[in-house]
Amino acid sequence: MSELRKNIISRQWVIIATERARRPHQFTREKKVRNELPRYVPNCPFCPGNEAQTPPERFRLSVAGNWRVRVVPNKFPALTEEDKLVSTNIGNKRTISGVGIHEIIIETPDHNGTLALMNNAEVERVIEAYLYRYHCTLADSRVEYVTLFKNHGAAAGTSIEHPHSQIIATPIIPGEIRERLESALQFYDERGQCIFCVTLQEEQEEHTRIVDENEQFVAFIPFGALSPFHLWIFPKRHCAAFGSINDAERIALASIMRRVLRKLYDGLGDPDYNFVIRTGPKDQRLRHYHWYVTIVPRVTQTAGFELGSGMSINMALPEESAQFLRGVVVN
Amino acid sequence: MSELRKNIISRQWVIIATERARRPHQFTREKKVRNELPRYVPNCPFCPGNEAQTPPERFRLSVAGNWRVRVVPNKFPALTEEDKLVSTNIGNKRTISGVGIHEIIIETPDHNGTLALMNNAEVERVIEAYLYRYHCTLADSRVEYVTLFKNHGAAAGTSIEHPHSQIIATPIIPGEIRERLESALQFYDERGQCIFCVTLQEEQEEHTRIVDENEQFVAFIPFGALSPFHLWIFPKRHCAAFGSINDAERIALASIMRRVLRKLYDGLGDPDYNFVIRTGPKDQRLRHYHWYVTIVPRVTQTAGFELGSGMSINMALPEESAQFLRGVVVN
Repeated sequence: MSELRKNIISRQWVIIATERARRPHQFTREKKVRNELPRYVPNCPFCPGNEAQTPPERFRLSVAGNWRVRVVPNKFPALTEEDKLVSTNIGNKRTISGVGIHEIIIETPDHNGTLALMNNAEVERVIEAYLYRYHCTLADSRVEYVTLFKNHGAAAGTSIEHPHSQIIATPIIPGEIRERLESALQFYDERGQCIFCVTLQEEQEEHTRIVDENEQFVAFIPFGALSPFHLWIFPKRHCAAFGSINDAERIALASIMRRVLRKLYDGLGDPDYNFVIRTGPKDQRLRHYHWYVTIVPRVTQTAGFELGSGMSINMALPEESAQFLRGVVVN
Repeated sequence: MSELRKNIISRQWVIIATERARRPHQFTREKKVRNELPRYVPNCPFCPGNEAQTPPERFRLSVAGNWRVRVVPNKFPALTEEDKLVSTNIGNKRTISGVGIHEIIIETPDHNGTLALMNNAEVERVIEAYLYRYHCTLADSRVEYVTLFKNHGAAAGTSIEHPHSQIIATPIIPGEIRERLESALQFYDERGQCIFCVTLQEEQEEHTRIVDENEQFVAFIPFGALSPFHLWIFPKRHCAAFGSINDAERIALASIMRRVLRKLYDGLGDPDYNFVIRTGPKDQRLRHYHWYVTIVPRVTQTAGFELGSGMSINMALPEESAQFLRGVVVN
């Protein structure tokens, strides 16, 4: 029968719906979309040769004179950099001026490239660009929080095919992060332990939901996974902010990200996905918060029940999904 | 420039992104999907003649010997009715057995029917079925909360074309509802007023976001609308639970629902949408909570930023969307 599980970090309830469950391979897409794309598209603003079509570049990593990763402002930003931070209340209507930073990290010159198929050095450069721009955007005094994320494929909300990630720096700490901070603080108050460290230890002991692991990181499907193949990558070292990672962690993160994305690529046929780096606010050294990466393959569609309740219905058993992904061999 | 607005009820922040804004008509779909469907599909389990393909019927409204609305258990329920409610904690892993009720309300015998194109009497029957099954499912002592919702179209998560709504009765009060209850209680503590009644009054005075209104209800686009054409329908009479509506309200609700859905149908070309009735828990007479309906047209795709932050990016200005829908004339 079905089971309700509580997601320990987000505190959301998920229905693991065994009555309507699907086996892992039933989520696999037949056709890998990436394979049909050309390496170069003449009118793509992110392809080499079209650099003038983007706003002025802010960061570049080159090899032998050719750029491999570029960071540029978003041409149609959700938030703008030019204005002052103005907060107003009229009646019960609260607004803040749309001040912030919105940048694009172009991950590769290859239009048909994808993190899953890159080598370690290539993914390391992407993480290096994340880290550099994370620090730069956070240095703006109007910025309270930096969200680093990627949309891969149409179901994940991409409008531009060329592989890219995004940074949105906001003048507030978003609600999702505040809730996680509050629940983590409450756990710490009660137990004197980091909820993430405790969860990681339990997952390693039980091992049934582990997908991959290296010296610095563990990738696993949470006990209360909100959707099929919903993955978390936790750093083993307690650390509140993504910006505080060391060189070894940066290299190990690139490696485990590449391996996990490759497992999804091979196992599920290049599924659409989102990932997000859930860092703590600013660069505080909080004892109760622990940064991590969430990867959400978009293999099912959320509907009215999720909207109305905030609960999820997951049609895949986390333990079975993890076993399936463990079995996908990658180099 | 862009503006951050706070959604007063959900407390979420939304970025009203004017830099990437679209005019209302730019969200309009060219082809109305419904128009291409046949009235009867021989192998559809919800079409007349195939009643034996559904689990045993629980409610039926007939006219001249023919059913017009049927309620049946979901053949592949997310939650099951047979079992006992068992709550367990193992380490930090919390589970509840998947006990609950999952029913389907078949809204019409016509495969190509849709609420937007029905007459008042037809929509009233659907609301009547909602209300009856709401009371019946809530009477189960294991049930803490009843979510009533509809998924219209593929982008809204429908897998079956034949028009239907759903009821999921859960053994917990979902997080989304608990959060709304808490924030409404806090407002009531501070002000001695219902946050919904205050919001409704402000919206009626300002009028710029009103879409439709009758004696009992007001339909409007919230100041902090989370997505384009995101709509709320508030009852004017303070009342915490959907189950406490009177006959006049039931009839007026059917009328305003039909009119608003017709405005979306004509104005946006039959968009996919979800709606949900956000009732208070059980049938408590709370002074601080106020039931309402949320309608969310699925005209854009949420992506990694929404996932990571819980914030939304809305590419439509609520005032402009409301003006557009006000201008769509319906009978």
